[in-house]
Amino acid sequence: MAYLAAPLENLIEQLCGLPGIGPKSAQRIAFFLMSLPRADAVELARAIVEVKDKVRFCSICFNVSEGEQCAICTDARRDGTVICVVEEPRDVIAIERSGRFAGKYHVLGGAISPIDGVGPEQLRFKELIDRLKEGSVTELIAATNPNAEGEATALYLAQLVRPLGIKVTRIASGLPVGGDLEYADEVTLGRAMDGRREL
Amino acid sequence: MAYLAAPLENLIEQLCGLPGIGPKSAQRIAFFLMSLPRADAVELARAIVEVKDKVRFCSICFNVSEGEQCAICTDARRDGTVICVVEEPRDVIAIERSGRFAGKYHVLGGAISPIDGVGPEQLRFKELIDRLKEGSVTELIAATNPNAEGEATALYLAQLVRPLGIKVTRIASGLPVGGDLEYADEVTLGRAMDGRREL
Repeated sequence: MAYLAAPLENLIEQLCGLPGIGPKSAQRIAFFLMSLPRADAVELARAIVEVKDKVRFCSICFNVSEGEQCAICTDARRDGTVICVVEEPRDVIAIERSGRFAGKYHVLGGAISPIDGVGPEQLRFKELIDRLKEGSVTELIAATNPNAEGEATALYLAQLVRPLGIKVTRIASGLPVGGDLEYADEVTLGRAMDGRREL
Repeated sequence: MAYLAAPLENLIEQLCGLPGIGPKSAQRIAFFLMSLPRADAVELARAIVEVKDKVRFCSICFNVSEGEQCAICTDARRDGTVICVVEEPRDVIAIERSGRFAGKYHVLGGAISPIDGVGPEQLRFKELIDRLKEGSVTELIAATNPNAEGEATALYLAQLVRPLGIKVTRIASGLPVGGDLEYADEVTLGRAMDGRREL
């Protein structure tokens, strides 16, 4: 593309490397950035570098954090007897948004996936066991994704923790609220039947 | 979102402001940027600011350019007697990619759109007329978009230039190559009929 200014080409190429951004979106975003006031572009550039420099993983739960320990781990009002085990920091965000959990978290850093070469030793199970050995935890909620890898990870977790005498629960699968029975896939509908509760 | 590190929240918010990026994409991109090596994040940040600092508009055609004049305007091999008039710099990219045009360009900076408050005086028609007065141009190709605003702009251009005795042509409308007659809308199909050529 000799007909485009080199810095613009470079920016488009780099934007193309971001997840979910194709060549057309990259071009659109690049022209948008070019049209911004310089201060706004600088602000975005600064925000990108700041995330690398100021955000790290909590030393207890491995959620994203500004300090050595995250805001949830250091919050005394949160119930330390229940730990919700998730795959990624974004899952913490999703669960926090639901407003239905007041315990603490443990971020595994992924799910067991033999085809991707991810075994339990690549995930933060060891760190979880160390936390459990402190003795105050009574329940672990396996909130990994309801897909093959997430289910395998939840099962592994249950087996791993059983000897410690800690209860392991799994978040419910079923129809999404607002969904339509008619359009539900058969596996989800089967799970919804299995997980029925008395009214 | 008190449960997320502030720099990450800030980055997500800023990414949400980009065209075509919603909250979910912004979150995904932010976590991706956090996972990058620091050097790569710095490189992207640098590219964003560099576009603001090093790219400007060509003083002749108003395409994006690194220098005072763009690579196309300064290319002596390109035909200076034909000017392709487009709305935006991205249209230059699209036409260059087709490989079917070897003349020069003029970027209007938009299309006439009374509902958006864009009249001819907001576009770069005056600068185009100045170029035409030099006398070497024999044809203008109106390559504005084939929508209401683009058509209005092309008509305005034709009326404006007629007194100067310069031929104004319009790019063809018709069926996209690889398209299906059956699925074409009636306006496009009508244009394709009107624009038929002898084989």
